[in-house]
Amino acid sequence: MSADQPKRLILNLFEMNCVSHITHGLWRLPDNNRHRFNDIGYWIELAKLLEDGGFDAVFLADVTGAYDTFRDGPETALREGLQIPSNDPLMVIPAMAAVTEHLGFGVTFSTSYEPPFSFARRLSTLDHLTNGRVGWNVVTSYLPNAARNFGLADEIPHDDRYRKADEYLDVLYKLWEGSWDDDAVIADRVGNVYTRPEGVRYINHVGEHFAVAGPHLCEPSPQRTPVIIQATASPAGVAFAGRHAEMVFTGGSTREQVSRGIESIKDAAELNGRPRDSIKVVVQAGIVVGRTLEEAEQKRLLFEQNASVEGRLAHASLPFDPTAHEPSVTVGQALAAEGKSEHPAASFLPVDVTVADFIRDFVASWEDQFFVCGTPETVADSIESWLDDDGIDGINLRQYHSFGTAQDFIELVVPELRRRGRLPQRRAADAAPRTLREVLFGGEARLQEPHIATRYRGGANLDSALLPLELGSRAPTG
Amino acid sequence: MSADQPKRLILNLFEMNCVSHITHGLWRLPDNNRHRFNDIGYWIELAKLLEDGGFDAVFLADVTGAYDTFRDGPETALREGLQIPSNDPLMVIPAMAAVTEHLGFGVTFSTSYEPPFSFARRLSTLDHLTNGRVGWNVVTSYLPNAARNFGLADEIPHDDRYRKADEYLDVLYKLWEGSWDDDAVIADRVGNVYTRPEGVRYINHVGEHFAVAGPHLCEPSPQRTPVIIQATASPAGVAFAGRHAEMVFTGGSTREQVSRGIESIKDAAELNGRPRDSIKVVVQAGIVVGRTLEEAEQKRLLFEQNASVEGRLAHASLPFDPTAHEPSVTVGQALAAEGKSEHPAASFLPVDVTVADFIRDFVASWEDQFFVCGTPETVADSIESWLDDDGIDGINLRQYHSFGTAQDFIELVVPELRRRGRLPQRRAADAAPRTLREVLFGGEARLQEPHIATRYRGGANLDSALLPLELGSRAPTG
Repeated sequence: MSADQPKRLILNLFEMNCVSHITHGLWRLPDNNRHRFNDIGYWIELAKLLEDGGFDAVFLADVTGAYDTFRDGPETALREGLQIPSNDPLMVIPAMAAVTEHLGFGVTFSTSYEPPFSFARRLSTLDHLTNGRVGWNVVTSYLPNAARNFGLADEIPHDDRYRKADEYLDVLYKLWEGSWDDDAVIADRVGNVYTRPEGVRYINHVGEHFAVAGPHLCEPSPQRTPVIIQATASPAGVAFAGRHAEMVFTGGSTREQVSRGIESIKDAAELNGRPRDSIKVVVQAGIVVGRTLEEAEQKRLLFEQNASVEGRLAHASLPFDPTAHEPSVTVGQALAAEGKSEHPAASFLPVDVTVADFIRDFVASWEDQFFVCGTPETVADSIESWLDDDGIDGINLRQYHSFGTAQDFIELVVPELRRRGRLPQRRAADAAPRTLREVLFGGEARLQEPHIATRYRGGANLDSALLPLELGSRAPTG
Repeated sequence: MSADQPKRLILNLFEMNCVSHITHGLWRLPDNNRHRFNDIGYWIELAKLLEDGGFDAVFLADVTGAYDTFRDGPETALREGLQIPSNDPLMVIPAMAAVTEHLGFGVTFSTSYEPPFSFARRLSTLDHLTNGRVGWNVVTSYLPNAARNFGLADEIPHDDRYRKADEYLDVLYKLWEGSWDDDAVIADRVGNVYTRPEGVRYINHVGEHFAVAGPHLCEPSPQRTPVIIQATASPAGVAFAGRHAEMVFTGGSTREQVSRGIESIKDAAELNGRPRDSIKVVVQAGIVVGRTLEEAEQKRLLFEQNASVEGRLAHASLPFDPTAHEPSVTVGQALAAEGKSEHPAASFLPVDVTVADFIRDFVASWEDQFFVCGTPETVADSIESWLDDDGIDGINLRQYHSFGTAQDFIELVVPELRRRGRLPQRRAADAAPRTLREVLFGGEARLQEPHIATRYRGGANLDSALLPLELGSRAPTG
C-alpha cells in the first residue's frame, strides 16, 4: 500500500443461521426477516443484496450447543431465539453461491468434535462450487452443552483444544496441499486418463489425535486451502493465529487494547517468518446510519428500546441472574444466595457492585469500541479512524435489522467510502470473479510461502508432522 | 391402489458427485458433462432438467474412500475417475434446491464415521432449505480405505456396523421427533417469545456407541425425519430395513431373486408391525432408448465400445488382476500367482474358470436384470413388467451420458409412461410443492405410526433406548 493510497476496508456482513445472533430482542422489529432463516429465499435475497451492494463477504458464526448456563437451563435462550434454533451454516453457502459470482463466504466450524477427513472434503467441495470464494473461521468451541452433544462430559480445556486444533489443521493442509499435484488431473478423453495416478498420494497422517490415510477425495480446488480465518483474542489463540491465520476476527474492551492485540497478532506472524501484512484483522462493528443525525438517532433509540437485556445476560452465560435480586444487593451476595459463589465464572465478576449497577454497566457495554451512529459522513469518518488510527483492516457488520442494516449501509455508507477510496468502485457487470484470497490480498488464489501449509506441496514432508505449537509463549503484550 | 389404477413408477436419477460413478469409460463420450461435477452450473442445469422433465428425485450415491484393492492401489480408480475425485454430496443439494420447487433429493451418508448430532442438524437444515424434499440413504460403508480415513485400521465388521447404525438412527429419531414439539415455536413478537421453552427438551441419550445431550438445534422441519432410504440386500440389512426404511434400493443376480428379496423386505416390515406397502422398493435400471430400435442399438453399441473393463474390475474391488495373465490360466492359478489365494474376497471367485471366461462373464453381467434397449414402447413395456411382475416400485436410472440419458428418458419415455398412467401428468405451473414423503406415499409429510421413530413424539420414551436390533433372524428367504 503506497502512502497516497488510502487503506481499503474489508467489508463483511456478520450473520448466523438463526433468529437472534447478537442483537437480542430485535428480531421482533417490523419487516425484520430474521424469523425467515429456515427459508432458502432468505439466503438467496441476502446474497444478491450483498453482492450487488459491494460487500466482500458474509461471515457466518456458529455454535453447536445451547446457551444453558444462565438460569441453569436453555429456557431464556429458547425464548429469545438466542442461537437456538440454529441451522448448519455450511448448507446455506451453495444456495447463496448459486445466485452470486463475487461474494465471499467465511464459515465457522469447530475443530473439536468432527473428523478432519470429511470436513476437508466439505470445504474443498464448497471451494469448487463457489469457484474459490470460501474462508474457514477456525474455532475450538466453548459451550459446555456442545461438548455434551458429542459424547464428552464437559468442554475440553482451552489450551488442549488449541493443540488439537493445531493437529487438525496439519491434517487438512496435508490433504489440501500435499495429496494432489496441480497437474494430476488431465481429463484426457483419448487416452482414458482422468487423473495421472503419479500426481496423487496417501498422506498417512498418524498423530496424537488423528490417523488419516487419504488420499484426499477432491481434486485441487481454486484456493486449495480456503482462506484461514480465526476468531480469537487469547494468548493461545494469538500464537495459533501467527502460525495459521490469514484473517483474524478479534476484539477487546478498549480500542487501545484492540490495537495492542493487533500488534501481538502481527508479532506472532513474524515469529513464524510471515510478513506482518499476511494477516488481516477485522472487528465487529455496530453502525447506525441515517440521512440526518436525527434519523440515525431515531433508529438507535428504536434498537435500544427493543433490545432484550435477558437475551444478553443469557448470551454472556452469566452464572447468576442479576434480575432476580433486589437492586441494592451486591453481585457477591446474589451469587451466594444462588449458591454460585464457587462457580468458575464467578471469579470474573465484580462482586462488590450492586446488581442494579451491574445491569447498568452491562447494558452500557453494548455500545462497544467500534460503534458509530450518525450521517454517512460521520460514519465514514469513524471507519477511517478505525482503519488508520487503530490498525484494523475491516469489519464484520453487526445486523440490528435484516435486511435493513445491510440496505442502509449499501445505500448510504458504501458510496461515501467509495468516494474516499476506502472501497473499490462498483464492479463492471462483466468483471471476472476472483477468489476470496485474491479479494482480500490482491495476490494469488493459493496460499503463499512461507505459510506452513505450503511445506506439503508436491508431497514433501508428508511423513513428518509439524512440531507442536507452543501455546502462550507469544501472548499479547496488552 | 385400486385394481383399475396402474401402479405408478417412482422415477429417480442415479447420480454421484464425481466423474465416473458406474458407467466407467463413458465420461469420455462427446458432450458428456461428467467432468463438470466440480462446477455448480452442472448441478443447477441438472436440477432444472429433472424437475421440468418429471423426475421425482435425484439419488446421490457416495463413498468416503478410494477403491484401492484392485492392483493393490488406487491407480486404476484414479485413471478412470472412478469415484475419485469425488465431492461431498450434501453440498450440491442447496444449489439444486435454489432453482427447483418439486424435485426430491436422496443423499447417501454413512453411520459409521461421523457424530450423529451434527448430521441430524445438517439434514434438518436441508429439510428446511428444500421445504421437505430430502431423503437419507443410510449406508454403513464398506471400503477399507474409508475406515483408514477415520482413524480405524480396517472396516468395522458388517453386523457390528448395522448395530451401530441402529443406535445412530435411535439418536436421530430422538433429536428429530422427540426434542421439539410442533407447537414449541410461536414467534410471538409482542410477548418476545420465539420458542416456548416447555416445548423443547434434552434427549440425554446414553448408549453403547453414543452419548448425546441435545436439545436438537433445529426447530421441526417439514418432514422432521427425512425419508429413510436404505441400500441393501443382505440379511442384516433387510432386518434393519424392516425396522427403519421407507424406501429400499436393492438388487440381485436374477429378477426372481430380486422379487424374493422384495418379499423379505416386506415381511421384515410386517415383523415390525408396519404395513407391507410402507416400504417402497427401487432398483437400478439401465435404459437405452431411441426413436427406432436401430437408433437405440447404435447408442448401446457406442456405450459398449467405450466402456472400460478396467474401471469395472477396480470398482468390483477384485483382489487379483485377470488382465495380467494368459487367457487360458484359471482364476485360481492367477490368484496363486499373485499370492492372493488367501484373500478374503477370493472365496467368492470361480477358481476353476479361465481368466478369459471370467472377463467375458464379468462383461456380460453389466447388462443386468433391469436393462432394456429399444423404442419408447418396448422400454415402457419392460418398466410395466418390472412394476407388475417383479414387484418393484421404482427405478434409479443409471446414466450412460450426462445429461443425454436423462434427456432421452424425458423426451421419449416419460410421455409414454404418462399415457399409460405410470407417471403423473405434467404438473400445473402453479402446483403446490409437496414433501418427498408426500410424493412417494401420497399421505402426510411426517412419518406415520407405527414407525418406531414416532414413539419419541412429545418427548415420550426418551429415557429408554430402543431394544437392540436382532440381526440375521429375518434373512431373505431367497
